[in-house]
Amino acid sequence: MGGDYGPPVTVAGALAALDAHPEIHVTFVGDPDQISTEIKNHRAETDRIAVVPSDGKISDDEHPVAALRRRPRSSIAVTTHLLKSGAADMAVSVGSTGATMAASVFALGLMEGLERPCIGGNFLGLAPDTTVIDLGSNVDCRPPQMVSFAALGVAFSRHYLGIQSPRVALLSVGEEAAKGNRQVQDTFTLLEKSHLNFVGNVEGMDFFTDKADVIVCDGFIGNILIKFAEGLGSVFRPFLQRQLASTFPEGAVTRITDAIWQSTNLPRTMGGPLFGINGLVMIGHGSSGPEGISGAIETGLLCHRIGLVNGFRQELSRLDMAIMLESGE
Amino acid sequence: MGGDYGPPVTVAGALAALDAHPEIHVTFVGDPDQISTEIKNHRAETDRIAVVPSDGKISDDEHPVAALRRRPRSSIAVTTHLLKSGAADMAVSVGSTGATMAASVFALGLMEGLERPCIGGNFLGLAPDTTVIDLGSNVDCRPPQMVSFAALGVAFSRHYLGIQSPRVALLSVGEEAAKGNRQVQDTFTLLEKSHLNFVGNVEGMDFFTDKADVIVCDGFIGNILIKFAEGLGSVFRPFLQRQLASTFPEGAVTRITDAIWQSTNLPRTMGGPLFGINGLVMIGHGSSGPEGISGAIETGLLCHRIGLVNGFRQELSRLDMAIMLESGE
Repeated sequence: MGGDYGPPVTVAGALAALDAHPEIHVTFVGDPDQISTEIKNHRAETDRIAVVPSDGKISDDEHPVAALRRRPRSSIAVTTHLLKSGAADMAVSVGSTGATMAASVFALGLMEGLERPCIGGNFLGLAPDTTVIDLGSNVDCRPPQMVSFAALGVAFSRHYLGIQSPRVALLSVGEEAAKGNRQVQDTFTLLEKSHLNFVGNVEGMDFFTDKADVIVCDGFIGNILIKFAEGLGSVFRPFLQRQLASTFPEGAVTRITDAIWQSTNLPRTMGGPLFGINGLVMIGHGSSGPEGISGAIETGLLCHRIGLVNGFRQELSRLDMAIMLESGE
Repeated sequence: MGGDYGPPVTVAGALAALDAHPEIHVTFVGDPDQISTEIKNHRAETDRIAVVPSDGKISDDEHPVAALRRRPRSSIAVTTHLLKSGAADMAVSVGSTGATMAASVFALGLMEGLERPCIGGNFLGLAPDTTVIDLGSNVDCRPPQMVSFAALGVAFSRHYLGIQSPRVALLSVGEEAAKGNRQVQDTFTLLEKSHLNFVGNVEGMDFFTDKADVIVCDGFIGNILIKFAEGLGSVFRPFLQRQLASTFPEGAVTRITDAIWQSTNLPRTMGGPLFGINGLVMIGHGSSGPEGISGAIETGLLCHRIGLVNGFRQELSRLDMAIMLESGE
C-alpha cells in the first residue's frame, strides 16, 4: 500500500518480477479490492499470486512506533508477520522507512549486538563496488553502533559484491586519526581494535578513489549524502541536456543523460535490504515506479540466494563485544 | 609560501591579478629569494610589488596553534600582521586552512559573539545563489554557533550575492522540526526564535531546489559535502568523456566536460573569505593553479568593495545574545 503511488505501481512492478521469475510467488498485502483491480487490469491470472488483507497504512509523517501500536493490522505489520510465520521468504516495502524498520524489529527481531537496524549499500553508480553504511536510518550514532555498521557493511561487501577482504574506512574531514568530530575519533579507536580490515579515515572525495570498500558514517550524514547525490544527478540531467542539445542529435543526448542520472540514482531502481534484521526485508525508494518495485525484488532474490542475512549474523558475531561495551558513552 | 605548489604558482597568479587590476598593489610574504626569482621569471617590474620576508611555513599536518607558537614569523603569521597594521587591506592564503584561521584570530580577532571563524559560500556551480555554511572549519558545533553561522551566511547572501532577505534553512534528514540529530533539533529551536528569515529544515537534494538561500550545517558535514561534490565532478569528467567520445568530436566533448567539472568545483577557482574575522582574509584551494590564486584575489576585491566584513559584523550584532546564551550546554 506504500510508496508515492500505491497499488497501481506496486502491483505492476511485482507482476513484472513474477513474469521474469517463474520460481517465485508473490503475496500482496493491503486493500483486497484495490489490489484485485490492479491484478485484473494486468490480466495476471496465476496461482503464484495471493492477496492478504490488511487494515490501513502508515505514512511518512507519523511516528513509526506509535503508529504501529495504533494500527497493528497495517500493511507493513501484516507483511513482516508473514515473514516471521514462514509464509514468505522476503518482504518488500516502498512505504515509510521508519515504519518498515520498526515493524521488522517487532516481528523479526534485531541481530545480537545491535541497537537498531540500518541501511547500507553501493549507492553510487560511479562507485558501484563501494558500500556505504549507514545511509540514513540512524542519527546520533554512538561509536559502538558505528562499528556494528562496519561489520554489516563488510558482510554486504563480501557476500553481495564478492569482495573477499573488504577494506573498511571511516568518513571524516582528513586522513589523520585526530581529524574529525568526537564521534568519529572514538569510532576510529574502536575500529582499530576490531577484527575488521580497517584502513583509516577517508574524506568526501574518496567515495570515488577506491581507497576503501566499505565507508562507515553516521546515518545523518549518509542520508544527506544519498539525497545530495540524487539531487545533483537530477539537475545534471537538464544541465547536460542544455549543454548538449545545441550541438548533438536528441536521441544521443537522451541516452547519455539517462546514463548520468542512473549513475547517481542507483537505489531508485534497485532497492536495498535492511541490515541487522533476522529476516530479509527489502526497502525500495518511495518514489519508485514499477521498475523500482521489480528492481527491489530482483535485488532481494539475489540477497536470498547468497544467504545475506546469515552473512550479516556471522560478521556481527565476530565483533569483540567486550571492546564495544568498554567504550561506553 | 603555501598551497600544493608554492611560489611558482602563487606568484604567477598574483601577478596576473596585478596585470588585470591597475589599482591594486601586491605584497608577497615568504622567502625573498624564491619570490624574486619567480617575479623575474615573469619580467614583472613594477612599483606595485613588495616583498616581505618571513621565516618558515606551517603545513597541513601540523597543529595550527602549536605551530604558530613555534614559528611566529611564518608566512601566514606575517601576512595577517600586515593586515592588522594596515599595511594591507586583504590577505590571501592557499596554505593550511587551520593555520590561516588561527593566525587570523590571533592577529585580527574574532567578531563579538563568535567562538571560531567559519567558511561559507556558494560552492556549487549548479546552485550559484545558494550559500552553504559551515564548509568545514568547525566540527562538533554547538547550536548557538550554528545560529551565528546562519547570520554570517545571511550577510554573505545579501551583500555578496545581492539577495535582500535571504531565506535560511537548516540541513537535516527531513522537513519536520522533529527530524534530525539533537544538534539540529536544538538549532531549529534557536533559529525559530532569531530575527533571521528561517524557513525550516531542508534535505540533501534541496541544495538544488531553491527552497533556501542560506543552508546551515555543521562544518563536519559541510567539509564532506564540498569534497564529495568535487570528487563526483572529477569522476564525472572521464565518465562523460567515455560516454561522449565514441560519438562526438573531441573539441565539443572537452568544452562540455570542462563545464561540468567547473559546475562542481567553484571554490578551486574563486576562493572564499573567512567569515567572522575582523579583517578580510581569503582562503584559496590548496591545489590552486595560478588561476585559482588570481580568482581568490578577484573574489577578495569584490568582498572589499562591498564592505563584506562590516556586513558580517552588522548581521551578527542583530542576534539576540540572551537567547543564544540561555540555550547553553
